[in-house]
Amino acid sequence: MIKYNAIAGRNLDRLAALSDGVFAFAMTLLVLDLHVPEAVPIHGERDLLRALGALAPRLVPYLMSFLTLGIFWVGQQTQFSYFARGNRHLAWIHLAFLFALTLMPFSTAFLATFITYRTALVVYWLNILLLGLGLYASWAYAVHARLLTAEASPDVSRAMFRRIRLAQLLYACGAALCAFNTYVSIGFIVLLQLNYALAPRIRFLYRL
Amino acid sequence: MIKYNAIAGRNLDRLAALSDGVFAFAMTLLVLDLHVPEAVPIHGERDLLRALGALAPRLVPYLMSFLTLGIFWVGQQTQFSYFARGNRHLAWIHLAFLFALTLMPFSTAFLATFITYRTALVVYWLNILLLGLGLYASWAYAVHARLLTAEASPDVSRAMFRRIRLAQLLYACGAALCAFNTYVSIGFIVLLQLNYALAPRIRFLYRL
Amino acid sequence: MIKYNAIAGRNLDRLAALSDGVFAFAMTLLVLDLHVPEAVPIHGERDLLRALGALAPRLVPYLMSFLTLGIFWVGQQTQFSYFARGNRHLAWIHLAFLFALTLMPFSTAFLATFITYRTALVVYWLNILLLGLGLYASWAYAVHARLLTAEASPDVSRAMFRRIRLAQLLYACGAALCAFNTYVSIGFIVLLQLNYALAPRIRFLYRL
Amino acid sequence: MIKYNAIAGRNLDRLAALSDGVFAFAMTLLVLDLHVPEAVPIHGERDLLRALGALAPRLVPYLMSFLTLGIFWVGQQTQFSYFARGNRHLAWIHLAFLFALTLMPFSTAFLATFITYRTALVVYWLNILLLGLGLYASWAYAVHARLLTAEASPDVSRAMFRRIRLAQLLYACGAALCAFNTYVSIGFIVLLQLNYALAPRIRFLYRL
Repeated sequence: MIKYNAIAGRNLDRLAALSDGVFAFAMTLLVLDLHVPEAVPIHGERDLLRALGALAPRLVPYLMSFLTLGIFWVGQQTQFSYFARGNRHLAWIHLAFLFALTLMPFSTAFLATFITYRTALVVYWLNILLLGLGLYASWAYAVHARLLTAEASPDVSRAMFRRIRLAQLLYACGAALCAFNTYVSIGFIVLLQLNYALAPRIRFLYRL
Repeated sequence: MIKYNAIAGRNLDRLAALSDGVFAFAMTLLVLDLHVPEAVPIHGERDLLRALGALAPRLVPYLMSFLTLGIFWVGQQTQFSYFARGNRHLAWIHLAFLFALTLMPFSTAFLATFITYRTALVVYWLNILLLGLGLYASWAYAVHARLLTAEASPDVSRAMFRRIRLAQLLYACGAALCAFNTYVSIGFIVLLQLNYALAPRIRFLYRL
Repeated sequence: MIKYNAIAGRNLDRLAALSDGVFAFAMTLLVLDLHVPEAVPIHGERDLLRALGALAPRLVPYLMSFLTLGIFWVGQQTQFSYFARGNRHLAWIHLAFLFALTLMPFSTAFLATFITYRTALVVYWLNILLLGLGLYASWAYAVHARLLTAEASPDVSRAMFRRIRLAQLLYACGAALCAFNTYVSIGFIVLLQLNYALAPRIRFLYRL
Repeated sequence: MIKYNAIAGRNLDRLAALSDGVFAFAMTLLVLDLHVPEAVPIHGERDLLRALGALAPRLVPYLMSFLTLGIFWVGQQTQFSYFARGNRHLAWIHLAFLFALTLMPFSTAFLATFITYRTALVVYWLNILLLGLGLYASWAYAVHARLLTAEASPDVSRAMFRRIRLAQLLYACGAALCAFNTYVSIGFIVLLQLNYALAPRIRFLYRL
């Protein structure tokens, strides 16, 4: 007798398409929270510039979250390029990962509104941690269930694990810096993410 | 003379892409209803933690709906992996299924707002029922119209039907539990869905 | 010298993907306008049922618009299945078609809010007309610029044109019925669309 | 030792899918800001027509932004048709481009609300400039890193660069016209974009 679970959820292309959809909406939604100032109290160019200037600090958490989403999108697609086939367990690991993703616009708006509160920063960090755990579980399961292509040598596998572990360690350090001040935390995390985005050819940084 | 209906809507890839888009959007929208607390009445970390705690129970219906969407997404893609070709009737069955999907964010927010009301729970269950009927009709029609690949043996077909029938029976039982209390219903449904998501290798549960 | 316009916008797969994205969002957005009733004035199951009943008539325009989007989605993909290649002009015709699509959630909410007003119905009809003109222009241009596959026989071509012309004629009749009453118009259009969706094997109806 | 950065982000199909998602969402969101008039002060068809008429000028910035998004979507896909392979740097250049895209609904709503303000127009122009810089950087990097197919002759490359440079020069001129009046600027930019969308076979215009 064939079990539904044995035949379900094996299509990697659809998993990738669903993921791209969720990433795309989450990315676009982030900035949606940036509201245009009210027209009523604006009486001249100077007022408008000032209102725009007042919005600027809110841009920082959005930029940070866009970087987060970009980093995890690159991470997920990198794993996919080594998957030979999928199964229902892998699909559900990625659905859990996507659930954590859909929380990102909330965490971001929460942090943007309460930017001086440690609670908001810890919530944001927990969201990043969940994303990291998702990708870690995905790769660990794919190795264990032999879903990888031949190109996924042990060396590749080590590079995957190392990257996630090191990045999460650094994010945790960044979050811990909120003991001093949430701005220090945010600054650290943004710099870390810019390093991941730009990947400058500086030995020490490139290795992170 | 060629009839438009005979040549229309036969592309399965586009049907899959449209579906992934609707699923991705619906999944992201669910959490969008989770509003960041107002900044005004928050005067310290403790206030913020309390406000966050007050949000937590609202997370349950969202998690439940994300699981629902995940389960039906896996279900739909599993069917697609056995479709050899499409036609306009199959396309419209899936469009009806997608219509039921787009109602999910409404049903979820409705249940989250009126979580102690049986009416809200029954509306939510009706939405799940519609989704189940959609997938059932899709498979039944595909069998009838010979749209399946050779791999879709009678055994596969039975597994598909059995899964939908059994799952819908269990959802109906879950909904009926609201005669006692809506929380009992929700608890039952969430546990059922976690079972479908995790598919633990426990004989009795794996068979459901 | 190579002109940018000669090499731009020739990828049909990306045009299809963009279209599926816009269709998927527009479909999901339709129902987003369906607001959950306020919790404050609800004191029991009966109140909630009544509030739900009050929402029901608003569902009709949404269902109608979902059918509209479904019909035009099927129409567009049917054309795509006969396109051998694309070019920038075809891409821009479809971008104009997508612009008309993005107006659909507005037209729908407008009609739902002012359902007894002829102005609202005419605006809605103009939106359908724009969509029809878009698909008509697309096919006419593809024929003219020889972008079609060999399977697109003159017979296929006639079926395409006939369908759009006849459907638009019937939509126009439906809209004209608002001279009597907007509900008559809406009823006529919904029945017409259900006929297109279900395509019953009744000779007279199947030919429409 | 394999570096994560060397194996990350090389899938062009997923980059295209993510981009199509962001484009589709941004396109649909633009019009979302067009609110249906309040039902309360409307007492007859004439009131409704007047309310609709009052909305019309707001349509101009949305149309302009849809054209902007369409132009840059065509531009991006044209580049993709010459990419033989991707890497993490290219992926991040396009992620930065997508970030600029997600700002478009904000810039558009900002301009629609403060249409007579130069500040709003300059913000809008900066957004277009960012998009142009993104595509310019993408092509320049792809040339430099030898990611192009054999079909991407030096002639093709020149056509790409020339188009972006000329278009950005003209957008800058359009923005500069706000020294006179923001409406002149908007009129100029819309005409320029219509020229790009329609690509009329008039020698002088076709060359732009």
